[in-house]
Parts: sequence; structure tokens; C-alpha cells
Amino acid sequence: MATQVVRTAAELREASARLLTGKEGRSQALVPTMGALHEGHARLARTAVEQNDVVVASIFVNPLQFGDAVDLDRYPRTLEADIALLEAQGVDLVFAPSVEDVYPDGEPLVRITAGSLGEKWEGASRPGHFDGALTVVAKLLHYGAPAAGLPSAGAFVSGSTAGLPAYRAYFGQKDAQQVALVRRMVADLNFPVDIVTVPTVRADDGLALSSRNRFLSDQEREAALVLSRALRLLEERANAQEPLDLDSAQAMVASQPLVELDYFDVVDPRTLEPLAENCRKVPFRGEGLALIAAKVGPVRLIDNVPLSS
Amino acid sequence: MATQVVRTAAELREASARLLTGKEGRSQALVPTMGALHEGHARLARTAVEQNDVVVASIFVNPLQFGDAVDLDRYPRTLEADIALLEAQGVDLVFAPSVEDVYPDGEPLVRITAGSLGEKWEGASRPGHFDGALTVVAKLLHYGAPAAGLPSAGAFVSGSTAGLPAYRAYFGQKDAQQVALVRRMVADLNFPVDIVTVPTVRADDGLALSSRNRFLSDQEREAALVLSRALRLLEERANAQEPLDLDSAQAMVASQPLVELDYFDVVDPRTLEPLAENCRKVPFRGEGLALIAAKVGPVRLIDNVPLSS
Repeated sequence: MATQVVRTAAELREASARLLTGKEGRSQALVPTMGALHEGHARLARTAVEQNDVVVASIFVNPLQFGDAVDLDRYPRTLEADIALLEAQGVDLVFAPSVEDVYPDGEPLVRITAGSLGEKWEGASRPGHFDGALTVVAKLLHYGAPAAGLPSAGAFVSGSTAGLPAYRAYFGQKDAQQVALVRRMVADLNFPVDIVTVPTVRADDGLALSSRNRFLSDQEREAALVLSRALRLLEERANAQEPLDLDSAQAMVASQPLVELDYFDVVDPRTLEPLAENCRKVPFRGEGLALIAAKVGPVRLIDNVPLSS
Repeated sequence: MATQVVRTAAELREASARLLTGKEGRSQALVPTMGALHEGHARLARTAVEQNDVVVASIFVNPLQFGDAVDLDRYPRTLEADIALLEAQGVDLVFAPSVEDVYPDGEPLVRITAGSLGEKWEGASRPGHFDGALTVVAKLLHYGAPAAGLPSAGAFVSGSTAGLPAYRAYFGQKDAQQVALVRRMVADLNFPVDIVTVPTVRADDGLALSSRNRFLSDQEREAALVLSRALRLLEERANAQEPLDLDSAQAMVASQPLVELDYFDVVDPRTLEPLAENCRKVPFRGEGLALIAAKVGPVRLIDNVPLSS
């Protein structure tokens, strides 16, 4: 079936309810994006399509999470190509609202605040970014929720919740801090949704896909590969249960003159607090998350890799 | 049918889904309370029962909205009487979770922030109160949402939303600023719920019912009547399209020595900004909200009256 593009929350609600009915659906998925889609988003959408009856992808460049109007203006907008990419993955509905639809009264007075988890790492250099991002994610989670359960007649077993429709939202591991914060928001505020994280997709040379990569010159792109190389080094050490030796990985990045490192650390995946210093000296055990951010030429890049041993 | 008491979100979800199924329900209501229920809450619950198929009332004294641990400790807890009162109104489910159920990880990291609307009036003397109140209301709105639509077979008309279950939440006008903030939160964050406001219930002498009234001595209670008298004066002037003459109403309150006035103003019902000065000198037209707060003996009281002309 062709992908349908809807512009308003009312249209989305009506169209998704109709689709859930037609399919006697049991689950609905939301894939929130800011457009400028690449293979990383395609993987998100494909995963959602595989796991759900009805899939809604949203495309909305949220002004609230940009500290800088210039950065907002230069954020790439490629709506027609985005819709084609989502259609190719089997997405049912593309929700592409205007800024006026999402913020009819201007900037919202009542908002989500990310708290201390939003002030570190990316938050340190982008004040208010995660408050704005979580505020729009909260709105999108409400927009994209199944409007009705609609199990087939007789399918609902009294005294059981087996007939209830599932609701899942899909986020890319690439934005690791955003994923941690969305998970925390959903838990802290009891949003009735399951958050599914989909692994980062990389180019053949290892660079994590990002809509910002298009702004890299060939030379800068070559230099940027040190980020994923340094992360892979940590991953290999973790897999081998060796000490992570973060210092040597950091030195590897520092040796690349075109790369201006912002942070590079191994943290607890839930709290984003740095793991104890000694995990660098002793064999790595447990769960960790290696986070890196750097400016390469004019472009700020982030990457990460989950560590498990 | 007897009222059922549930303690956890999972029990609530299962029980309300079963009730919606059994009744082939079209609407579910949430009546959030902090217990210590009186006739004002009874009216809230009765209104919800009249208007909905399944009604959930919650009883939860939210530590997050008390700035003062002493105030939290002395807040009255009367669970058995509360359940009986709700049962008498026909409430289907009473959701009475523990603090540990609502905040399993301790205080939430990600929260709702009320913004400027939460810093004035009550917010001015209770910093953080509305952030805490909205955070728990957001959680309760998610807990209490219908878990499934479940219209009867064939009732869903393709291309229409007629078959979708309604979700309504009921708040008392007595807490006027809370109502304004909850409405703003629901609009700003797109919660899929309709907010219904139910008028303040008063004792025969005019005093607005409050769980805190029990702490007034007879003499203090007599003094406290000046609050509702002053509000009624404004209401009568508004109804007669006379100038409100707020000054004379304020002087009436000031003449009562046991009453320590905090604020008394006429505001825009949506923005809570004071109405232009001249509306006091010219005949009142339009919509307003008269807000008053005062300490009477040891007890802080609030009251309000919507004005319309």
C-alpha cells in the first residue's frame, strides 16, 4: 500500500485508526525523525515495519532544540526524498506537520526538563537542547499513540491484557544521550510506550551515518574516521576483556590535527556517569558506553559504541 | 458494582481494560485526588460518573509538590473514608499507589516544568510546587488512559473517528491555577485527554470546601468567610456589568484582622495575568478570574470565582 502523507494531528489520528482497524492491528510504531534521511533512518523504519502492524514516521525539524537560528536554517530539508525512502521501507504514514501545527501558541510554556542527565556531554555545549528535544518527543509520542485498540471481535480475553495494542517508538543508538534521556522520560513520566533502540549504521569506512556528514570535505571526512577507529579499539578491548586503556584511545584522536576533540569517555549507559577510573587499568567487565564528540572542520560529529563483556 | 481498589499501574491497566470491554465502553475518566475527600471531590466524581462508562479515581499524596516535609506529614490521610465516598458516587476503580510505586527510582530526573505560569500567585509562595504537581499529573494522565478502545464489532466506521474511546480528566475549579496549568500542559504537550473543570463546592456559609478547613478554629472559620464574601461582591458587580472596584473588595478583606492577605486580583483566566487596571473603573465586560489567597490563623486558604459578563 502506498505511503500516505498527513499534515495535522487530526489527520494522523484518523488515518492511523483506520489502518489499525483495517489490519485488525495489534501494534503501532512511531519513528520520529528530523528528515534529511539516510540509511540509518531506513534501518529504523525497516525494523519498525518488521515488528508492527502500523508504522508512522514523523518528519519535523524542531526549532526548540536548536540553540542557534543559523544551525536551524542550514539543517538540510529533503522532504520528497525522505518520503520516497520511507515508502521504500514500507512505512504506512508520514506525519510532516508545520511548525505552526506543532506550536500553535508559539513556544510552549509548559515543557519537559531533562534535569542533570541533559546537562552533561552534548548538553554541556548545547544548553537547553535536550529540554527542547524531549519536549517535542513528548508531543510526538502523544501524536503517534494508537488512537484505538480495535482487536478483532472475541479476541479480547476478559481478565487478560493480551488484546491490548502495543505501542513502540524507535530511536537510533547514534544519539546515545537522547536515547538514554527518552528512556528516562518514559520511565519517569509513565508514557505508555516501549522504546526500541536500533544500532548505528556506518559507511563502509566506519563513519557513523549522519545528515551532517554532507558538510565534510574529503580531507575532513578522512580525518573524521579516527572517531570510529578509536571507538572500535575500545570495543575490541572490551570484547577481549582487556583493560580499556582509554588514555591510549584518546591519544589516538589527539594525534589527528583536523579533529578538535570535545569529549571521549566511557560511561554508565543509564546514568551517563563516567565509569570508575580503575576500569581503565583492569580487564573490562559489565556494561559501558563509549561516547565521543569532536569538531571536524566546520562540523560537529558524535559517535558512540555500547560496550559489553 | 462494587468499587475495586488497585495499587499498581499494571493492576489499574488490567482492571480498566476489563471494565471497558465488559461495558463495550466508549469513554474512560480519571479523577486525580490527594485524598482527604469532601463534597467537592464527591461532585467531581459524580460528574465523571454521569459522563463516562468507566471512572478511575486516584488517591495519592504527591511528595514532589510539597516544599515542606512538615506540611507533607500533616496532610490528612483518610483512605477508608475516601474509598467509601468514591464508592457512593459510583466510581469503578480507586487507584491508590504507594510512593514507591509512583517513584520507583526516587525523585524523577526528567520532569515537567510549569514555566512562568507556575511562578506567579500560588507559585510565588510555593517554589517548585507546580513543577511537582504537573509532573505527577502527567504520570497520572498516562496511568489512567484507556488501555484499549474496544468498540463493539462493526461500530467503527471507516474514515471516521466516531468509534474511538474518549478520555477525560476531572479537576476542581477550586485550584484555579492548577487547572490553568494542566490545561496548558495538555495543550503544549498534546496529551490525548479532555480536561473537564467542575465548579467549586461551598459550605452553606460560603466557605469553599478544602481539606485544610478542618484546621480552622471556630473564630478563624468565621473570619475566613470574608474571602468568599469579597469574591461574591466581585461576581455580583461583574454580573451587573458594573466596575469591579477591586480596591473596595480588597479593603473589605483588609478590615478583617485574623486574615493575612497574600494576593487578591482579577486575572485573565488563561494567562493568569492581571486584567488591565481600567477594568476596575469601567463596567466589566468579558472573561476574568478573581483569585484570592490568605493565611487565616495557621491555615493558608485559596479561593476564586470565574467572572463573565
